[in-house]
Amino acid sequence: MIYRAEIKVLLKRSVLDPQGQAVEKALAILSYDNVEHVRIGKYMELRLRASDKTAAEAQVREMCERLLANPVIEDFIFTVAEAEA
Amino acid sequence: MIYRAEIKVLLKRSVLDPQGQAVEKALAILSYDNVEHVRIGKYMELRLRASDKTAAEAQVREMCERLLANPVIEDFIFTVAEAEA
Repeated sequence: MIYRAEIKVLLKRSVLDPQGQAVEKALAILSYDNVEHVRIGKYMELRLRASDKTAAEAQVREMCERLLANPVIEDFIFTVAEAEA
Repeated sequence: MIYRAEIKVLLKRSVLDPQGQAVEKALAILSYDNVEHVRIGKYMELRLRASDKTAAEAQVREMCERLLANPVIEDFIFTVAEAEA
């Protein structure tokens, strides 16, 4: 079975996000001064073959911990769903 | 009213994604060779003050088109919801 995973990786709340701050300032310069708490992270999509959804979720979690996120400074959340095709 | 926006920015399907390819190869080296179609993009969270949800959505769309995404090579999707606090 083919599953589709969507993964979001964000810096932990306690970690300074200079990229988010830069974007917030740039937005303010463009007159979007009603925007705050901008945080920037990574978004990843992938497809994987697995025997069932539980196995797919376990593998995605493991891949996040080993490669896709840095658990020291980043949090990740993901969803896994059956792919259409 | 305060709204919370979540924005995903991904390269258009027709645009080569070298970062995604690099991650796919790195996953294969780690024995995750059942993974394919890795695509890497940006994920952004922000809060904004707006009179209603329609205004908040319109502003987020405009910010994506003007600053947060590059419409020539990227697609964006976003959700806007009332923030809890």
